[in-house]
Parts: sequence; C-alpha cells; structure tokens
Amino acid sequence: MPGNTFGHSFRVTTWGESHGPAIGVVIDGCPSRLPLNADFIQAALDKRRPGKGGAAETTRKEPDRVEILSGVFEGLTTGTPISLVIYNKDAKSSSYDALKDVFRPGHGDMTYLAKYGIRDHRGGGRASGRETAARVAAGAVAQLVLNTAGIEVIAHTVCLGGIRAKEMNEQAIENNRLFCADAEAAVQMEELIASVRSEGDSLGGIVEILAKNVPAGLGEPVFDKLDADLAKALMSIGAVKAVEIGAGMQAAFLRGSENNDAIGPGGFLSNNAGGILAGISNGDEIVCRVAVKPIPSISLVQQTVNTEGEPVTVRIGGRHDASAIPRIVPVCQAMVRLVLADHLLRQKAVNP
Amino acid sequence: MPGNTFGHSFRVTTWGESHGPAIGVVIDGCPSRLPLNADFIQAALDKRRPGKGGAAETTRKEPDRVEILSGVFEGLTTGTPISLVIYNKDAKSSSYDALKDVFRPGHGDMTYLAKYGIRDHRGGGRASGRETAARVAAGAVAQLVLNTAGIEVIAHTVCLGGIRAKEMNEQAIENNRLFCADAEAAVQMEELIASVRSEGDSLGGIVEILAKNVPAGLGEPVFDKLDADLAKALMSIGAVKAVEIGAGMQAAFLRGSENNDAIGPGGFLSNNAGGILAGISNGDEIVCRVAVKPIPSISLVQQTVNTEGEPVTVRIGGRHDASAIPRIVPVCQAMVRLVLADHLLRQKAVNP
Amino acid sequence: MPGNTFGHSFRVTTWGESHGPAIGVVIDGCPSRLPLNADFIQAALDKRRPGKGGAAETTRKEPDRVEILSGVFEGLTTGTPISLVIYNKDAKSSSYDALKDVFRPGHGDMTYLAKYGIRDHRGGGRASGRETAARVAAGAVAQLVLNTAGIEVIAHTVCLGGIRAKEMNEQAIENNRLFCADAEAAVQMEELIASVRSEGDSLGGIVEILAKNVPAGLGEPVFDKLDADLAKALMSIGAVKAVEIGAGMQAAFLRGSENNDAIGPGGFLSNNAGGILAGISNGDEIVCRVAVKPIPSISLVQQTVNTEGEPVTVRIGGRHDASAIPRIVPVCQAMVRLVLADHLLRQKAVNP
Amino acid sequence: MPGNTFGHSFRVTTWGESHGPAIGVVIDGCPSRLPLNADFIQAALDKRRPGKGGAAETTRKEPDRVEILSGVFEGLTTGTPISLVIYNKDAKSSSYDALKDVFRPGHGDMTYLAKYGIRDHRGGGRASGRETAARVAAGAVAQLVLNTAGIEVIAHTVCLGGIRAKEMNEQAIENNRLFCADAEAAVQMEELIASVRSEGDSLGGIVEILAKNVPAGLGEPVFDKLDADLAKALMSIGAVKAVEIGAGMQAAFLRGSENNDAIGPGGFLSNNAGGILAGISNGDEIVCRVAVKPIPSISLVQQTVNTEGEPVTVRIGGRHDASAIPRIVPVCQAMVRLVLADHLLRQKAVNP
Repeated sequence: MPGNTFGHSFRVTTWGESHGPAIGVVIDGCPSRLPLNADFIQAALDKRRPGKGGAAETTRKEPDRVEILSGVFEGLTTGTPISLVIYNKDAKSSSYDALKDVFRPGHGDMTYLAKYGIRDHRGGGRASGRETAARVAAGAVAQLVLNTAGIEVIAHTVCLGGIRAKEMNEQAIENNRLFCADAEAAVQMEELIASVRSEGDSLGGIVEILAKNVPAGLGEPVFDKLDADLAKALMSIGAVKAVEIGAGMQAAFLRGSENNDAIGPGGFLSNNAGGILAGISNGDEIVCRVAVKPIPSISLVQQTVNTEGEPVTVRIGGRHDASAIPRIVPVCQAMVRLVLADHLLRQKAVNP
Repeated sequence: MPGNTFGHSFRVTTWGESHGPAIGVVIDGCPSRLPLNADFIQAALDKRRPGKGGAAETTRKEPDRVEILSGVFEGLTTGTPISLVIYNKDAKSSSYDALKDVFRPGHGDMTYLAKYGIRDHRGGGRASGRETAARVAAGAVAQLVLNTAGIEVIAHTVCLGGIRAKEMNEQAIENNRLFCADAEAAVQMEELIASVRSEGDSLGGIVEILAKNVPAGLGEPVFDKLDADLAKALMSIGAVKAVEIGAGMQAAFLRGSENNDAIGPGGFLSNNAGGILAGISNGDEIVCRVAVKPIPSISLVQQTVNTEGEPVTVRIGGRHDASAIPRIVPVCQAMVRLVLADHLLRQKAVNP
Repeated sequence: MPGNTFGHSFRVTTWGESHGPAIGVVIDGCPSRLPLNADFIQAALDKRRPGKGGAAETTRKEPDRVEILSGVFEGLTTGTPISLVIYNKDAKSSSYDALKDVFRPGHGDMTYLAKYGIRDHRGGGRASGRETAARVAAGAVAQLVLNTAGIEVIAHTVCLGGIRAKEMNEQAIENNRLFCADAEAAVQMEELIASVRSEGDSLGGIVEILAKNVPAGLGEPVFDKLDADLAKALMSIGAVKAVEIGAGMQAAFLRGSENNDAIGPGGFLSNNAGGILAGISNGDEIVCRVAVKPIPSISLVQQTVNTEGEPVTVRIGGRHDASAIPRIVPVCQAMVRLVLADHLLRQKAVNP
Repeated sequence: MPGNTFGHSFRVTTWGESHGPAIGVVIDGCPSRLPLNADFIQAALDKRRPGKGGAAETTRKEPDRVEILSGVFEGLTTGTPISLVIYNKDAKSSSYDALKDVFRPGHGDMTYLAKYGIRDHRGGGRASGRETAARVAAGAVAQLVLNTAGIEVIAHTVCLGGIRAKEMNEQAIENNRLFCADAEAAVQMEELIASVRSEGDSLGGIVEILAKNVPAGLGEPVFDKLDADLAKALMSIGAVKAVEIGAGMQAAFLRGSENNDAIGPGGFLSNNAGGILAGISNGDEIVCRVAVKPIPSISLVQQTVNTEGEPVTVRIGGRHDASAIPRIVPVCQAMVRLVLADHLLRQKAVNP
C-alpha cells in the first residue's frame, strides 16, 4: 500500500512535486455544513510562507495561492471530498541541473532512487518541504472540525540552535517569524541564524505543540493510540528526528513516584503524561515536542558520491534557509490538527 | 475505525484482556511456505516472560504457552491468517477488587472509562502490559519474513534509572535479564532496581533498537515513512514516552555540517540519519531509541480520586516490577520487526 | 494487503481452516456496553449447523461451540476486540488424502495452489464453507449494533433448483430447514433435493435478504456505496455468482418511467431501487438477492487433472450436501448485518 | 471512514462535483517507470465523452481535457501520487435551479440530503455521472500496470432495451457508439433509443466485461476475493443494479454436474466460473456482467415530493441521454482495470 494518505475518518491524501505543475491535497471525511472558503485556508498557508523577512528566508517567493476545487457549496462543506490545489509558479528547475547526478548529503536523493529507480531531482521532487504546504492547508480544514469541540492547537519554537525559550507567552508566538513564545529569545535566535547562515551552515531546533480542550476519550488502543498517531504524524515531517509526549525522554530518568501524575478532584496535579494515558486523552493539555534537524542544504563543501557511486564534492549553491524551524512550526501544528480531527470523528463510532 | 490492527501488507490484530480467558493475535499477510511451529514463537515469548529471576520480576508466573490455531500446514505457512492464542491461566482477579473504583495514577483506568463508559478493572484489562505478549509472538513470525532478506533486529537497554551502558557488546545482551550490552552496567542496574524496589518505587530507562541489513528503499513517503511507522509502532507500547531516530533529540543541537552524513564510495561515513533519509531506508543500520517511563504501579501512597471524583489515597499492593525495561525490550524488538516486515512486503508492490 | 478483514468501523477478521485446530473471528470496533454472551452467538450458529435433518445434510456433525475469549466483561461488551473461537472437533482429515493431488472441479484447489504455492487440501482448507461459521458468529454481534437502531435483517430462500417460493410468509422461514417463506414450496424443494442427491448431483438457488428499518443516510459515496459494499459482502461468500439490488437484472429491461420509484408524502410508491439511491439508503426496505451455484462436490464422475497436470477422473466420495442453500442463508444474513453495522457506525462520523 | 477511495496497493481517490470548478483523481501506488502522458489518458476519456453523435447523446459538450499535475517526470511515472484534474467548463448551473427543492425520482437528491444535511443540487453534484470521468482516467493508468502482465480488459454492450447482441465480434465494439460487438444489433439498439427518447423515456441494458490473460492467483481470500472486489467495483457505478460473474444468475438453475467446469490438460473445458474459483483467478478469462438501470432523468411527468415533503410533479427538462449505456461501458472497463491492477500488485506481497 502506498503512503500518501493520512487518517481514517478524517483522511487526507497529498500529492505533488516541488517543481511539477502543482501540489495539492484531497480531504475526505470532513463533516458537512462547516463554513469554509479559500481565504481561511490561505491564512494558514501564509503563516508558513517564506519571504516574511528575517535571516532564515529563501529567495523563492512562493505565491502559494490555494484554490478549492470541490466539496464546498455556497460556503459550506458538503461532506464530499475537498480538493485543494496550489499551482507552482516560481520554480526555476534549471538551477537544479547541476545536482541531477549527485546525492546531496542529508537528502532523500539516494533513497528515492533506490526505492523507485527514478527520481525527479528538481528541488527535492516529492521529498521537498514544499509538500508540507498541502498538509498545512488540510490542517486548516481539520481545525474547523476541532472548532466544533473547542479544541485549540498551538505550536511554538522552544529551542533553536541551542538557544532556549525561557518563557511561554502565547501572545508573543505570532509576533515573531520564529513562532517563539519568548520575544527575547527570538531575537537571540535570529542573531544566531544570521551568523550561521553567513558561515554557510544551518541550525536545528525543538518545536512544542500543545492541544487545549481535548476531551478525555480520544485515541484507539492498542496500536492507534493517540500518542502513537501523534508520533507518526510528527515523525512524518521530513526534518523531524525525535518525538516526545509529556515528560518525554526525561521520563526515563524519573522514578514512578515522580513521574506519576497525582489526581485531585479538580483534575491532574501535574502533566508528565502529556495529556495521554494508555493511549487515550485524559482531558489534560496534550503536550508534544519534536527535534528538528538542521537543514541539510548548506553551502559548505560536502563529501558525497554521484549516481555512479564515484566520490565527488558538492557545494549547494543558492540562498537557503539556515533553519527549517519557521516553516516547520505550522506543519507541526497542522499534523496535530489532523490527528485530533481524525480521532475526534473516530470516537463518534466508538461510543455513539 | 478501531485501533487493534497494525500494518498493511503484514497485518496483525491483537485481542485479549489481562484477566480474560486468553489473549492472542491474528497475523494476516504472512507469505506462504515459511517454516513455522509453536516452539519458535514460544522461544520469543520466553524472552519477555517474567520469572527469570532478578530483582525486577513479578510473582505472577505466566505460563504463556502459545498455540497455533491456523495458517500453518505440515510445518509451513500457507498464506492464510495465522491465529495464535495464549490462555490466561494464573490470573487472580479478586486481588484487583480493591482498585475497582479507584483511578490509579499513571494508568489508563480513567481514560478507558471516559472512552468506553465501562472498563475491565482486573489487572489493567486491555491496557495491561500482558497484551504485548501477543505482539512478541507476532514479531517472531515477522522475523521469518525478515529472514528472507537477511534482516536482523537487536534491542538492548542503554540506560536504566540513569545508569548508562558504556559499551555495546552484542554477546552480552542475551546474558543478562536486562538485555544490556554492557555486563558491568547490567550489574549496577540490577542493584539500583533492588534498592528502588525496596523503597516501593520504580525506574524508567532507554531502549535502543538496531536493524541490520535492511535494504535501501523501504518506507512509503510521505506519511508512511519508515521512521514515521517506527515512531508509531514504538510509541504504541504503553510505557514509551519518546522515540528517537538516529541522532534523535541531539539533532536539534547540531549544525548541518555536523549532522549531515557524508557519503563515500563504500557508503555513509556516519549515521546521524539512523539509516533513514526522507522516510526511506538508505541501506545503513536503522537506529531507534525509546524512553520508557517508570512503571506506575508503586507501593508508595499516592493521591488520586475514585470513580465518583472524590479524593482518595491509593497504595498499590502486591509485588510489582520495579522497571518495565526487561519486559519491554522484546516488545520493542517485536514492533520494529512488524514495521520492517510490513514495509518489506509493501515494497514488492512498488517496484515489482 | 491480505484479505481476511471486512469492514472499517465495525471490523471483522476471520481465520481458520476446515481441518485445522479451530476457526474464529476477531471483531474490532463493536461499541461498548452491549449485552453479549456465548449463548446469543451460539443460537445464530445453530441455525447454520448441518444435522438439523432433511435431505441436504452432511453426515459431519459439527458441534460448533463458540467461546468468547475477550472483549466482554460482566456480560457487556467493553469496546475492545471480541475474539470468538470454535474448535474443530469432528474432522476426519484422512478421508481427504485421496484428493490430495487432484484438482476438484468447481473448487479452489487449483487457485490456492497457484496463489500460495502450497495448500491445505483437507476439506478445502481455508476455502471451506466452514469458514463462514465465523462470519455467522460475527453477524450475531453485528445484530446487537443494529438493534440499537431497530434494524432487522431477514434472509430466505426464494428459489431452489428452479422451484420458486410463491409467497412471502415471514413466519414460515424459521419453520423449515430451507429458510423458505413458502411452506409448500419448501416441501417441493426438499423432494427435489432428495431426488437430485440420490443421483449424486447438486442444486443451486436464489436467496433474498431484506433489511427493515434502515434509516436513510447510510452508505459512503462514491466507492463505498451501500449497495457496493453489500455486493462485495455477498459475493465474498464462496458459492455466490450474482448479486442483485432491488429490481436487479430486471432493471436492464425496464424503461425509466417504469423503473423510477415515484415518491408520495408517505414515502416511495415502489421499491425498484431496493432501498438505495446513489449508494445511500433511502429509508425504504433494503432488498438484495444472490444466485448460489450448486455445490461442486458431487459423486458423479468428473474430468479433471492432478497437480502434475495429467488428466484424471474424480468421483468425490462421502455424503455431501445436495445444496448449499440451507447453510448459506444465515451467511447471507450475517454479511448484510456486517455491512449495515459498519455503515451505521461510519455514519456517526459523517454527520456527528 | 469516508468512501471516495478505491483499492489498496493501487489506490484511487476521486473528487469533484458536476458543477463545481473541476473533478479529478489522485492515483497512489502506481509503480514507477511506466510511460505516461496526458494524451494517453485523454484517449480513454474521449471514449466516454458524449457528443460523438447518435441518438443517446446529451447536448452538453464536455471538453473533459485532462491534465497531469504530479507523479510523472520526463514521461515516466515516478512512483509518487499521480494527480489528474479535469476542469468543468460548460456547466450551466442555473438550469438546475428549478429542481433545487425537488427530489427527482431515481436520483440521490433525497439520500444525499438525508446523509449530509446539505446538497449541491446542480446536476446531481457529487452523484453525477460526471464523477465517473475521473474513474475512466484512473482506469487508463491502471491499464499501464496491466500491460506489464499482458492483461487486456474489454467491455461491451450485450443488451439494450431488451435487444441482445447475437454475436461477439471484438472488432465491431469500437465501431459503434454503443460498444456493441454485434453491428446489426447496434443499429437496432440505436433505433430503439431514438424512439424511446422521442417519448421522453429511457432504457436500461446489460454490459459484459472480459479480462484476458489474467494470471492464476489474483484475489485475496476470504473477503477480498477477486469476484467480491469486482462486484463492489461494478456496483459502485451509479446506475448498476446487478453484477454477475461467469454463469451468474443462471448458476442458480444449473446442477453441479452442469455448472462445474471440467479441467483438461490444456485448461478448463468451460467457463461457468467466469475465471474465478474460491475468489482467486484460475487463469481463464474473467467474465462479468452488469445490469444498468434506465437513466432516471426523463421528460415524462413524475410524481414526487419537495424538500418540505409536499407532493409535487416534476418533468425534467433539457435533452437527456435516453440510455446510460454508451457512457457506462468505459466506466465498467475502468473499474475492472482498477480491480485487476490492485490485485496484481497485492499478489506481489503474497508470494514474493
């Protein structure tokens, strides 16, 4: 079975290559009679769009205009598949010709060729981060479903290049390009990005995603646990190398008496569980974190091989993002939205 | 859609409660003509069985005798579903009566009730770690599929209660109850377990899973990436709170020039990717790590509520494991086997 | 992907061979808190059991005692998988040795071998009609789900060996072994069966399945239409060669003005649609019919080949059913129950 | 789970409404390195296009220009999703305003409203036959997969309005608008269509689909039998009310000695099985037939109700097809192609 579909009751299928004619997504299973128009989705897309300024931006100005091709009638969803398309307008394929026969370190060039025996080398093809625009668009639709239950999903940068956010000021998140809840840390992060970029190198970071007002009872044991599906959703983002729920890696170092969340009449007294017990939401805030690796496209010289297996060096030209973080934060948010919308609808069949 | 099935081409469905008549698994999609008998599966089960001695064991001696009820004819798989059953023989349900109306901290008592409006309180019911015996049995069958490609999966404890294994001696893994590749560290870990157990508390740890000889090309972009499916598989184990691939969390702190794995004519010169690029295996060793939380059943007094929402204290009697690690290592191994067997078969349809 | 699972929200996986240790089914997705015990399922199984007398019976007395191994606690479903097992007790495998190397005409001997490269020749192995006992058991559980909506499913024989039922007296259905709503026709059918059986031959027939009180709105366009899923479910029964909905084949010969069901304030004035329009239930009675081929195991001499491809003749010994009808009627009923339970639960997610 | 996806290894998701901006399909799982361009798909679409002349045609001239938006690179499939779009250009929505509040007999107007609480009334919305253009496009891609195994799928009209084709001349099929293998019968059928159309009425018919060179071994017991999936695929076409395999309904009237296909050293001596035994292809020709109901849109006065449940009469204006047959034949062919491509790829994982 191929792998471009996510979810069961709320189900999205993305398609498209970085330098093909378009990218898009089909959303099947969106409940009917929800208000939806292209502007609403566009607003979500604009958040992840590069070109908002700042040192991490690429020069490619993606217009990313989303169009709704089906599933909406007179401003309301109809219950039929919602097809969204974003045409690729500003794609200079020729600039990738030099890399046609070279496996760029840290990229999927080699693995796509191993898998399919052919690859669209232009801008990463299907493996491009551009694919995630379709996820963000679908995530906006998923949020409509979450709205029916009052669920809110927040994603923010908690660490970039080793610089940690020291406070969680929700208002600050939207006020800086890095989606950092600590305005001061955001400034330091930008300085580091600028510095590292000038060296031709790149930086990783950590993103935290919170979901509020998730009702208890979401998640399907034993394999489709809510945390298992969140882990899959988040790890399916290209640059993510680790996923934590609640206390995460730290849980390995705690004792039971420390890690267990005591319960009072008003609810849990701590949240090491990250809002999930035995794979099912417990009514507390859902807390996930992901480690994002540094962008592999750097302008420093790297050792690699070509498609013939011969050793070559590569220096990836052009102006690249020094960190994937600004673009990945909305994608993390979108993936958590997709998981929650799916499980919210799945729960309807469990306890009708 | 319910959640007790894992995999697409190699597909397992587990069933059963801790104190019900039996637990089991149906494996659908196992290729035909592979040699299989109950002893082979039993050997895998015996590895996870408690009662091998050591300070972490529980007193419940689970016989865990697996029977093959279908799918095998004259010692060979037939391509039809393989049904495995393990009857529950030594289950004293009455000892759980005291906890019938209490939500044990760190357990799924509350969430199962929220989800289903009913729960089998005996020994955790479906949320019991006992369910994982079915996964281990299925994992043994998955290994038969992996054998056809020469793939080997190793799981070992790299950290327990803060004590880290300092060497990776594969031979040592099977020689201690903790599956630790550092015999000396294993002794220290056992001492810590004994000490913590006497305090009525419990310990978490970190398990690493390695897969060798995985051919390049496994994994289905963009959602069913190999690392995404590994993350889901591992996070679906009850006590796991974090999953890392390759450099994992550490990747967030590296620069691109450090994190990128350079490639030489003989292969990758490092393995921060953990054997996976753009969601597809790259031919290098697959490396995953999981954080295991401390067992929530501790004999210290804990604050919680009962099913009426009234505050109560609970002290979980009986002799409990002080660490889930010894039992979880084979489960981690089994889940990675399931993912790889599934993707090995899925790849047949991609590039036939 | 293997094929032993049916349904999405209400999902059954059957397993087992005719002469293996047992057959069974895992039902995943049954809502919680429905009353269930083994006797209820046993009653459904007893309906399909041979040995109720009459000329069509086989001599094999299958005890078919079903056991519930999981998913039920204190008489109520828990929302976790329900595992049902029926041990094979009276299976004389040796009587099949003579057929080990022969492809019986009309059976799957040749195709299983072509597909899997191995086959369990004993009694048809997985292709045996015995597998359908698991479906009937699952169908009983599905009926519990249908009860929550007041849906009733009736299956009856409308034609056997060319003899047609001329009236539809629901009370008569349970009063004869052939599930025929026309008591008089049932007598004639039995006489024909006896006669044909003495000739060593067998008979086909037509079964009709009706579903009452199905609410409008079930069925998922465009591929998982309610009639499409019914067609698949019914065609998945071994002996079925045709499926009709409503007017069925006859619709090909009607004009639009005849075939269209006019609508009055009280509902549809006719039911050529069979209760389904555009793949969605319309609130009227669901009407399906299936053509059942004559049982291929006959004691007349037949021309065939052996596994070496050499021509041989075969005469299938033993006493066989002269018609599959009595056993297939409850299976048809069960499959329609499975489809409706699945779509009833699926609809919960569509219009929550 | 929503229902707009078909297949597992070769998986298509269609989307779009009759009078929305566009319709389309995403094909996931197409093997890589198959030659594909828009002209190839266009040729398949042109076959189903109305406006080829003849009495059954509608006046709406659908341009149906298909565009490939992804999954193809330098003329070859890449293994990534193939997105196809057909923009709706000639859609006069206003002509449907009169029917906005009326349930047309034989259409899904009432059932879509019952299911979703909203409906796009323009031209049938999602329930329009226009949706099937996406299936035909996907079917063309499926044929590429079948080509790798030499499989050919032929669909032809065997009966229309009671007039039966009396010969099977494959060459004739493409030479008349009705895809009839009997040129003489085709003329009679056209005359009948013209006559019935002038009366404002419509006609049903029977389509036969044959698949040649299908290797033995395709089909997944027990639920995803090849015939079960064919039945679902064909019944999912809006106007289809019955599906037969091989002898079909007639099998109910045969004796075992007549219906069994004897086997000689050169293969089967007859084909009542329709090329499928126990749900698995037996190497013989696959034979299916479907009953197509008369088009419900007729210009005769019909009795119905409006959305308020009040009785009204309706006379569906405009020039309508008098028979769905010419448009449905390529859709039947497409659906059989989809099923076979899916099972061909699924078999790769069974017996690798």
